[in-house]
Amino acid sequence: MTFEQRSALPASARTVFFVSDGTGITAETFGHSVLTQFDLRFRQIRLPFIDTLDKAHEAARKINEVAAADGQRPIIFSTLVKTELSSVIRQCNGMHMDLIQTFVAPLEQELGVKSTHTIGRSHNIVDSEEYKNRIEAINFSLAHDDGQSHKNLTSADVILVGVSRSGKTPTSLYLAMQYGIKAANYPLIPDDFERGKLPSSLYEYKSKIFGLSITPERLSEIRNERRAGSKYAAIENCRYEVNEAEMMMKREGIRWLSSTTKSIEEIATTILQEIKPDRREY
Amino acid sequence: MTFEQRSALPASARTVFFVSDGTGITAETFGHSVLTQFDLRFRQIRLPFIDTLDKAHEAARKINEVAAADGQRPIIFSTLVKTELSSVIRQCNGMHMDLIQTFVAPLEQELGVKSTHTIGRSHNIVDSEEYKNRIEAINFSLAHDDGQSHKNLTSADVILVGVSRSGKTPTSLYLAMQYGIKAANYPLIPDDFERGKLPSSLYEYKSKIFGLSITPERLSEIRNERRAGSKYAAIENCRYEVNEAEMMMKREGIRWLSSTTKSIEEIATTILQEIKPDRREY
Repeated sequence: MTFEQRSALPASARTVFFVSDGTGITAETFGHSVLTQFDLRFRQIRLPFIDTLDKAHEAARKINEVAAADGQRPIIFSTLVKTELSSVIRQCNGMHMDLIQTFVAPLEQELGVKSTHTIGRSHNIVDSEEYKNRIEAINFSLAHDDGQSHKNLTSADVILVGVSRSGKTPTSLYLAMQYGIKAANYPLIPDDFERGKLPSSLYEYKSKIFGLSITPERLSEIRNERRAGSKYAAIENCRYEVNEAEMMMKREGIRWLSSTTKSIEEIATTILQEIKPDRREY
Repeated sequence: MTFEQRSALPASARTVFFVSDGTGITAETFGHSVLTQFDLRFRQIRLPFIDTLDKAHEAARKINEVAAADGQRPIIFSTLVKTELSSVIRQCNGMHMDLIQTFVAPLEQELGVKSTHTIGRSHNIVDSEEYKNRIEAINFSLAHDDGQSHKNLTSADVILVGVSRSGKTPTSLYLAMQYGIKAANYPLIPDDFERGKLPSSLYEYKSKIFGLSITPERLSEIRNERRAGSKYAAIENCRYEVNEAEMMMKREGIRWLSSTTKSIEEIATTILQEIKPDRREY
């Protein structure tokens, strides 16, 4: 699956719509994973916030126009909860992948209760505890990025350590944004290697520490993008730092993984499995 | 739907499994939106990285154990792509919501091609252009947080403006992380209001500017959490700043929205619809 600009696509590329009464993020995330299974190119159009009959009719018009212009019916991933809205979209000329209808009805039967048919989680979400935790976690992770602050480490759920540019910052932010996990991060620097010890402020939180490493070759590549030709980016220096950092993590009994070929989502998922922060179950 | 700690849940709460050959984020995101439709409490267990037969059998054992302990079958949201893995899970005692099988087969027929049955997007994702853009965007958004840098604003996709604590930072990071959008953000401060003009470095990028506002009451609440009793957090000061910021945005013809009751996902989706950054279609 590849999504591209309209102009770069062959005329035969199929159009995919993501239709939602909220942001459309669920429809899009799910649609992408299904379409990834096909070695084809798609053109995508998102239609979020379709929460009134008028907007549903307007969306239906757009879909029908595209169907006519393309000469083939578009694929429609929808997460419309209200039946009166989804039935408007179902009348369009398209292939309907209705995520709610397909799974909610059998679940009603299984659970022995009717669904509430509210509109997603999008309303009142801002007042929910879960949302507040996420925003607080983002602020925490920003304030504790790159060893900036030793304050409140007691309330950190996880403390990432690793050499500069091993992926700590994006991983911390992702943990905060996606899961409301308060993730501090600390760089391991040459001073630490010379002393042969972790930064001393971290010892009391050792059970929350998780390490990220990376191959020296990839690290040198990344550092060269920032500071081309520097000692910092030189392969010998990267080899030294990575080797020292890995030895230190082994010596201190810190769990760690190599981020070299892992996405931030994969790193975050692994950390959650290992650290098992109190407030959630995995 | 509420997810809680095992101990806090009534014995009758149903267990939900998210089973995936990758991170399980798609299964979880989708499962949450479906389960939100039910006014019940669930216990969740995520089983990520189930990518071998051994791991599938191990997962199946866990699910069956929970089914026996709960005295009722768990609900299983799965995104296992490989048929030999999903068929192991399908034999468990559970209610199966197989996201891939349900939608991939009809799509094969519609598109006239067989699916590739690769494992999600999880492999090689790190080498993809899309992933590199996301990481670059996160670094850009961090470097251009809170008006820190005027450099490279030419390459910004969007520049958020608004008073301090109106939601610019989490929104910028979300745009970067989710969509690879390079989002700079600039605070509007009393100096700007006295001059009655936007920060001068922003004028040449006016078409990329988007404003966030907020009610003075909510702003005062948020600021009081940080600096209780300060002039900064006082309701009169918040009223002054919000009023000046909104007048400025109107005068300058800047599009803006109120973030008061909107989640960062909703704000980001609205901004994408308005700004329509070149590289993507919405």
